[in-house]
Amino acid sequence: MRAVEIREYAETDWPQVWPIVREVVRAADTFPYDPGMTEGEARDTWLERPPGLTVVAAEDGRVLGTAKMGPNKPGPGSHVSTASFMVPGDARGKGVGTALCRFALGWAREQGYAGMQFNAVVETNRAAVDIYERLGFELIGTVPGAFEHPEHGRVGLHIMYCAF
Amino acid sequence: MRAVEIREYAETDWPQVWPIVREVVRAADTFPYDPGMTEGEARDTWLERPPGLTVVAAEDGRVLGTAKMGPNKPGPGSHVSTASFMVPGDARGKGVGTALCRFALGWAREQGYAGMQFNAVVETNRAAVDIYERLGFELIGTVPGAFEHPEHGRVGLHIMYCAF
Repeated sequence: MRAVEIREYAETDWPQVWPIVREVVRAADTFPYDPGMTEGEARDTWLERPPGLTVVAAEDGRVLGTAKMGPNKPGPGSHVSTASFMVPGDARGKGVGTALCRFALGWAREQGYAGMQFNAVVETNRAAVDIYERLGFELIGTVPGAFEHPEHGRVGLHIMYCAF
Repeated sequence: MRAVEIREYAETDWPQVWPIVREVVRAADTFPYDPGMTEGEARDTWLERPPGLTVVAAEDGRVLGTAKMGPNKPGPGSHVSTASFMVPGDARGKGVGTALCRFALGWAREQGYAGMQFNAVVETNRAAVDIYERLGFELIGTVPGAFEHPEHGRVGLHIMYCAF
């Protein structure tokens, strides 16, 4: 693939970001989000305000994926970051998820976070788990059966962590 | 101690619940909440709407503790419950936390949840960890250094789970 540019989300990206969020959330196989999420709820959920950040992966003006990042918890938990990534079906397998995750890790390091935590990685989402492990995340534990997968039934949710 | 009554939160409880939330949040040693949380933010955070529930532990009209409970995640994660408990310093060591946790587990079982997950139990909060283990929670894993404790520095956050 050509180099994908990762840049800060701009309001003009929404017409391309919303269909990605809608597709991923409605598939209900990777995110513990309400699959009936409205466009307004998607905006509230996905568009971070400082100290968080939302970005897009773009190639020739086409948005191929999106990520959000920021503190995982407020107050005494705010030195640990978290991030989420969405890549639509027709853009998968091209390294977009890896590029987004690398970007998020670099951003969080620059911001001075102590590490990055993922709270709910669906264990059947092997593509994601592989990327995270390759980029330095370790498995903290798995909550058994915590995710109702549309095909596989109840599968585990991994908690993963990357210390900086 | 006399039997503590656990009952649904009523609006008239707020003048007793807010000081408890304020004390626990400002101490910043057990909850990853913003210690500067305002009264309005505390209401939004602590008072659950259906399908969740907020309760108080009361004795002779005095509120000795409070708990909130509900789905841990939306959508494909909504069959697992979560709960949080607050007991002010001068009511600790009397079984109030245990009574609140027992109540939450009973409520979640009745509601048909598959289990209860705690996402961020501060590892130095031994009183809480002991109660949870006694009531059937297992340790899923610990995110190292994820909580900035005012006395102990960065300590771990446990993820705990009780399957029903």
